Amino acid sequence: MEINAERLKANLLELSKIGYNENDRGIYRIGFTDADMQGRQWLQEKAKNAGLESYMDGAGNVFFGRGQRDNPVVLMGSHIDSVPAGGIFDGALGVMAALEVIQTIQEQQPSIDTPVWGVATAEEEGRFGGMLGSQAMSGCLNPDWLLSAHDADGVYLKDAMAAQGLDAMQALDAAWRPEQLKAFVELHIEQGPVLFQKDLQIGVVDGISGVFKWIVHLKGKADHAGTAPMDMRSDAFMGLADFAHEIERIIAENGTDKTRITVGKVELKPGHPHTVPGEAVFTIVGRDMDEGVMRELANACRKTLSAIARKHRLMFEYEQVSWLEPKHCSTELTNIIEAQVKQRGYSYTRMPSGAGHDTQFMTEVTDAGLIFIPSVNGVSHAPDEWSHWHDVEAGTNVLLDTIVAICGVDRDQKSVGKTLKKPK
Amino acid sequence: MEINAERLKANLLELSKIGYNENDRGIYRIGFTDADMQGRQWLQEKAKNAGLESYMDGAGNVFFGRGQRDNPVVLMGSHIDSVPAGGIFDGALGVMAALEVIQTIQEQQPSIDTPVWGVATAEEEGRFGGMLGSQAMSGCLNPDWLLSAHDADGVYLKDAMAAQGLDAMQALDAAWRPEQLKAFVELHIEQGPVLFQKDLQIGVVDGISGVFKWIVHLKGKADHAGTAPMDMRSDAFMGLADFAHEIERIIAENGTDKTRITVGKVELKPGHPHTVPGEAVFTIVGRDMDEGVMRELANACRKTLSAIARKHRLMFEYEQVSWLEPKHCSTELTNIIEAQVKQRGYSYTRMPSGAGHDTQFMTEVTDAGLIFIPSVNGVSHAPDEWSHWHDVEAGTNVLLDTIVAICGVDRDQKSVGKTLKKPK
Repeated sequence: MEINAERLKANLLELSKIGYNENDRGIYRIGFTDADMQGRQWLQEKAKNAGLESYMDGAGNVFFGRGQRDNPVVLMGSHIDSVPAGGIFDGALGVMAALEVIQTIQEQQPSIDTPVWGVATAEEEGRFGGMLGSQAMSGCLNPDWLLSAHDADGVYLKDAMAAQGLDAMQALDAAWRPEQLKAFVELHIEQGPVLFQKDLQIGVVDGISGVFKWIVHLKGKADHAGTAPMDMRSDAFMGLADFAHEIERIIAENGTDKTRITVGKVELKPGHPHTVPGEAVFTIVGRDMDEGVMRELANACRKTLSAIARKHRLMFEYEQVSWLEPKHCSTELTNIIEAQVKQRGYSYTRMPSGAGHDTQFMTEVTDAGLIFIPSVNGVSHAPDEWSHWHDVEAGTNVLLDTIVAICGVDRDQKSVGKTLKKPK
Repeated sequence: MEINAERLKANLLELSKIGYNENDRGIYRIGFTDADMQGRQWLQEKAKNAGLESYMDGAGNVFFGRGQRDNPVVLMGSHIDSVPAGGIFDGALGVMAALEVIQTIQEQQPSIDTPVWGVATAEEEGRFGGMLGSQAMSGCLNPDWLLSAHDADGVYLKDAMAAQGLDAMQALDAAWRPEQLKAFVELHIEQGPVLFQKDLQIGVVDGISGVFKWIVHLKGKADHAGTAPMDMRSDAFMGLADFAHEIERIIAENGTDKTRITVGKVELKPGHPHTVPGEAVFTIVGRDMDEGVMRELANACRKTLSAIARKHRLMFEYEQVSWLEPKHCSTELTNIIEAQVKQRGYSYTRMPSGAGHDTQFMTEVTDAGLIFIPSVNGVSHAPDEWSHWHDVEAGTNVLLDTIVAICGVDRDQKSVGKTLKKPK
């Protein structure tokens, strides 16, 4: 079987007109805005016109597919909401590929009786600080959060949903039980440079890196940059610079090739050219696929900062804003994906995802797998995000083969159905 | 002779009530505000009550003293304007010490016939980006600047002066000819930690450090901090950190014990915790007493940044915002000051001034000297600026002795008068 690449392309381009901004050529389908809801309505009509069933759940997730949902469902999907000025593939690829795979099965192998469904999750990009749709599906929500979550402008999630005719509390009804699902598979653009730079067609994702975020304060003494001799300073920025210089060593000693440590935000006080910085406030974001490694990295950062603070006569404080453990994709499902990629003869690598995806919550409720295709220059979350159409086709064919393989396993009454299902 | 320490203290405390803010306990005599002008009026009355002559020139400088100004004048002084929330000694010390020295001479050695005058310069703190008073006195002004200079709020110097009944163009009439001056001596608080930390009473200042200011741009690529592996990044902040780490080496290889290099202001773009910084914009301020050394330091900074930019795949650009050459105090006058300090038995060091002072412009028109007393904890430009009264007394006695020495040299018709005078 082969997917219909022209139809998939046409669908992606049609969806890309919803929320398109002519000025910056970016997509604006921010969660629960009119454009986002327009996209969801368009998708339901599209599915119905293709002879599929479709419905929206209490969280705003749009489902479409074929087959009785009384039996465990093979679910595919991603999101169709976007960041402001986003690209046309981020999320939308996984949703439109799901539709294409279901249509292909319906047309070319209608005998498959396993229910095969797609989903366009709601508010994945975190306007309200979470991944609402997949958190709802995996049962990772609570009323307190639903009623208190708000965006950067102070708009509450519940109000934004109400404005679209949705009741936030009904998101709690959207949870799936593990026995209702056979597997979840997501196709997504990499949003990073690895596949593109290594000229590989497919990324078979092992899981989503764990991540910790610190806000660090180094406090010294703000002095006149002319009158304070170098050896009498307590220069907070020099402490930060010395720490950043040690990041390479910290990773070499404690990390893996999947480790990333980033200082992305820095504020110096008072921040005047002629004043020795009295305080540096900065973020450290660390990632790895192994939580033990994450702990070693965090320890090494703390020790290094303590020693540097002593050397520069600084006070060192940090707040651990978040600690998210790594999420592992299903080993068996990942092996199935890898087998399809090999059979197609595509070049590939196994890799972690450094960015968050719906898959990370779906691992809580079922066996979940994630497939990447290359992002040109690694760009995403910007109007110049791009992926080549031949990679879109290849990725969607891998998704098709994977779904068929999972369905086939099921049909033969092997144990894989149970193995894939991982009740919590 | 000894100055009257109690009278000096009383005068300083009386002046400190003008522009005092009860909330932050800081002085607000910002140039050409009502409080600043009130201070100038108070000073003139104070001088007249002491039996001295007094007048204000076209730049707003207030002069007070004794003796015919037809003969070359021995001039002392500093400024009485302040930064917002400033301390009570910054500038005011040098003005009130000048008044005290003149009163002491008048009372105890009235036979000195050399004209001895004091000055409270106008707008030294740079509200309008210069040192108006001493620039006017030393002939370092032009009409274009006078008419275009404005403060951070967009208020023009000429309008601020007009609001106080002054015509900015008349600042051009305030220039002194070199032959009208014998010398200029300024007493000031150090505004740095050296004397306080080394427990010294007096700083004999060799000159004011030259200073260059750069704005540096390092441009890389903003990537997702999760998806971009460490070895595929062009992290602009890591370039900056590596440079800052090299500052110690740059000074060791190219600088002196008087060198200072400071990174005081840093902006990262986009400046998000989860994004690899695509651009770092930061300032470098370098200082030394030797302009050749300054050139070597600037060269080393440029070379280091170029190499680091190549290593991190960054684009490196910089703009040299300013380059001010070092200003040297008169060697002969500095030696006279040192001799007086030794005779009094005070502990002292010869040192550069890293901060700017009226003296730096006065070196353009006459032999100028600068005397420091310790600042407690090196603090200045803040309400907790402080200097001990015994240091105020010691510094003012050194000023007195220095002035008397200069007058004495003159009276004996030695050549020192001519040597001290340095026409440009």
